[in-house]
This record gives sequence, C-alpha cells and structure tokens, in this order.
Amino acid sequence: MNTTDSGYYVVIFSSTLRSAQLDEDSEYARTARRMAELAAQQPGFLSVESVRQGLQGITVSCWQDLAAIARWRQHPEHQAAIERGRQHWYEDYHLRICRVEKAYRGPARDTAVPGDTQQDGRG
Amino acid sequence: MNTTDSGYYVVIFSSTLRSAQLDEDSEYARTARRMAELAAQQPGFLSVESVRQGLQGITVSCWQDLAAIARWRQHPEHQAAIERGRQHWYEDYHLRICRVEKAYRGPARDTAVPGDTQQDGRG
Repeated sequence: MNTTDSGYYVVIFSSTLRSAQLDEDSEYARTARRMAELAAQQPGFLSVESVRQGLQGITVSCWQDLAAIARWRQHPEHQAAIERGRQHWYEDYHLRICRVEKAYRGPARDTAVPGDTQQDGRG
Repeated sequence: MNTTDSGYYVVIFSSTLRSAQLDEDSEYARTARRMAELAAQQPGFLSVESVRQGLQGITVSCWQDLAAIARWRQHPEHQAAIERGRQHWYEDYHLRICRVEKAYRGPARDTAVPGDTQQDGRG
C-alpha cells in the first residue's frame, strides 16, 4: 500500500515530556527505539515518522486498519511502555486515531488521489 | 469543540526542507509564522501544533470539517505560500487529510471517547 492512497489509518501521538530525554541511552530513548522496531514488525503496520523538538514530540504511525492499531495497543511490551510513559515520562499526551481521507505528495511528485477536486495542480 | 472528541478533521503535513531554515527572519520562517496566524483566523479552525527537528517537520492542524480545510487551501495568501514552498523550500512533503475516529488524552486526564472498548484504563 502506497501512503499517497487513502483509506488506511494513522495514529497521531503528540506528547510533552516532563524533562528533556536527550541521553540516547536513557530508559525513555531505549524504549522509544524498541517500540518503533516492534511496531514495524506488527501485522498491518505501514510506516512511522517521528519528530521531537525539545519537550514536544509528534509521532505519526500508519496502519492498514483499526484492528491492526488495536492489536498493537494490546501488545504486552507496548502496554508496559504505555504505562511507564504515563507514570514517568510524559507531562501530557494526546493520541488521535484517524482515517486518511485524502493524501498528496509534493513538491516534485504532487499527486492527488483520484476523484479529488481540491487539487489545483501545477500544469 | 474539545479535541478529545472525535468526528473533526486533521491535516498532517510532514515535510523535509531543502536546507535548515534556522534564521527566524528567513522568508520561510516568516511565512510559516504568518500561515499559522492566518490559519487560526479561518472559520472552522480548531488548533495547530508543529514540531521541527533539523530538516524534518510535522504540523498537525485540526478543523471542524472538510469544507473548512478546502477553504483554507484556497485562501490566496496560503496558495501563494504553497507555491513558494513547492518551488523553493521543500525537498519533499506529504499531506494527509484525515477524519478523527477516536482520541485520548493522558497521562493524568486519560479519557476515551464513549463507546471505545480498547481502552484498558488505570483503575
């Protein structure tokens, strides 16, 4: 599945850390890496991207369907990490599960999904 | 509308800049600030959050409906900024328009939308 398609699902995880976890060997950093690695092994996983700026972070992971997201959420190692995050690492977080309705890529490969009428194109 | 609700829409804008635009007075930085300010004035706008780490950035904006997103996309000043971005600033970008199906907040205010059965709670 190409993620310029629509109809798949994304999980947007926006977080604020309690303190900057800059040490790449911190338990937080090690857990974050392990979760990215483990997520990528789950059935229905498509892709993940993650950006952090100081205490603020946004991670967007893409999944084939809601069932895949639910299964990943129930994974014992993930559950343990979620609980650890709630208790120790995050000041706040906001998790949104969303269905992708339309997707575009740019600037060179600016393609809309078929049927979209908002796209003005470049000629 | 509280963004722990569902049924609203998000635009996920993931981008890679051609070069680090660290100067806060660069045309890119000024345009990015202006677009955030202008977006917030549009009917149907709910919220925006943006994180950048080196060349990689993720911006998530929330909107009441698809019509609000389409109107903002058609705004002349926004159109000009999109074109400028395509031509000059972005190596690549990926824009996804999504419908929020479920939303959670944590860790202190860990609430699920009604009807969700994946939430295991904390006690």
